Amino acid sequence: MILINGQPENRIDVADRGLQYGDGLFETIAYRHGRLEFLSDHLSRLKEGCNRLNIAFSASQQQSLISEIDSVCQQLNSDAVIKVMITRGPGGRGYRYQSEMPTTRIISSHAMPVYPVANVSGITVRICQQRLAINPSLAGIKHLNRLEQILARNEWQDDTIAEGVMLDYQERVIEGTMSNLFLVKNNELLTAELSSAGIAGIMRKQLIKVADELGIPLNITTLTLDELKSAEEVFVCNSLIGIWPVIRITDLNVDFSHGPLTQILQNALNSINTDE
Amino acid sequence: MILINGQPENRIDVADRGLQYGDGLFETIAYRHGRLEFLSDHLSRLKEGCNRLNIAFSASQQQSLISEIDSVCQQLNSDAVIKVMITRGPGGRGYRYQSEMPTTRIISSHAMPVYPVANVSGITVRICQQRLAINPSLAGIKHLNRLEQILARNEWQDDTIAEGVMLDYQERVIEGTMSNLFLVKNNELLTAELSSAGIAGIMRKQLIKVADELGIPLNITTLTLDELKSAEEVFVCNSLIGIWPVIRITDLNVDFSHGPLTQILQNALNSINTDE
Repeated sequence: MILINGQPENRIDVADRGLQYGDGLFETIAYRHGRLEFLSDHLSRLKEGCNRLNIAFSASQQQSLISEIDSVCQQLNSDAVIKVMITRGPGGRGYRYQSEMPTTRIISSHAMPVYPVANVSGITVRICQQRLAINPSLAGIKHLNRLEQILARNEWQDDTIAEGVMLDYQERVIEGTMSNLFLVKNNELLTAELSSAGIAGIMRKQLIKVADELGIPLNITTLTLDELKSAEEVFVCNSLIGIWPVIRITDLNVDFSHGPLTQILQNALNSINTDE
Repeated sequence: MILINGQPENRIDVADRGLQYGDGLFETIAYRHGRLEFLSDHLSRLKEGCNRLNIAFSASQQQSLISEIDSVCQQLNSDAVIKVMITRGPGGRGYRYQSEMPTTRIISSHAMPVYPVANVSGITVRICQQRLAINPSLAGIKHLNRLEQILARNEWQDDTIAEGVMLDYQERVIEGTMSNLFLVKNNELLTAELSSAGIAGIMRKQLIKVADELGIPLNITTLTLDELKSAEEVFVCNSLIGIWPVIRITDLNVDFSHGPLTQILQNALNSINTDE
């Protein structure tokens, strides 16, 4: 089921700036056991993205969005992925936008992807050749300009490789094509700071909170390929997959174990309150 | 009039990757006096963009596109802008694409924008705060990921400022928000090389050819703000506006004249064969 501005509809105006220029944002929300996981965090990031791009997203629009998400979920009888898109709406040709544009809300449900069960015990990843551009004004938010991720994700077809690690053009390790990345080193958790590239994932945010609650030292910092190579544990995370330990990086020819700290965090996630 | 894959239609499948991720390309073609200007150059750039993004665009698709453009133009009774978009087509959620995706072709006609007549004698521009990210794999082509241009163009509302100059994150002068930029210095024409940022404009390409034909020395190079400030002449160009001389840059507080070399190129453009 798809709702566009509250109406059941699967097509959108060609003039929508989401199509014309990627002028919008999206969220991918897990719907499991009849509940939307981390909904308020997803809505916060969406709102932050709208602020950054100067897309109107009023309290009443947010209220409509929540009730539309609810309507879509009521049609579901199994776990699903709820994708929410907000665009600047239909407009004329040209980059300039009008100050009072009617924001477009699109909510769609999708089958929950089925990943190999073994992924929760360990995956193989590769290092992507495609780099992330350095762009502070767009970093962190989940906007619709995703060609870098598309180029990166389509560098490989080998299904035994579950994810690709992306570096930025200054060779800093940032994230996966669809996930955030954490390292463990000297019992400390490390993850990339995302002020100039990358998407600040909702699961990453949860894990930062969980680490704090469990008293695990955490360092949000700059990561190099050498640090990745010499990590004791490595894992990727996102809202749909939770945590996948990385046990092999093909291009670097390094192996890791499914280590104790990763397991502690996986267990903690299983008992987290996803309504928060 | 809008044609989507040959059918009169103004709405598109929400699942189209052009909307989902900005996974596509576009061209903006001037239609004047009953003819499409520089059509073959626009089609070449579109094809080059498809190659770079690995979007299928076969000879038969190109043939369909040309005949669809022709159909749209036959409905026109005045000058217009023809916008052509090619997307990777509708697909499932996720960055990975299937190898045999049905490319979407969208052709729309728009009113030719009416700019102040005085622009051909000189415009005022500003320096944008928004920078262009350095991204060799996306540089040069006219893809649908245009948030940088949108942020840049909406930094100002003052209609006396006709264009904004964009620098990249290494502070190199690259182009305008919707145009390419040329400087004149010591009777030499200078324009930015676009291997890491910017769009290789069709009018830029024409002017490079014209300069060669007229024996005007041309240097495609790295440009700094200091070089811009100390230029003898400055102009911007694109397929719709032709050439606009820059006579003032507000943020730098510098003025230029509508100089002789700019006038030579403007005159040359007026006599160029736009069918080439």
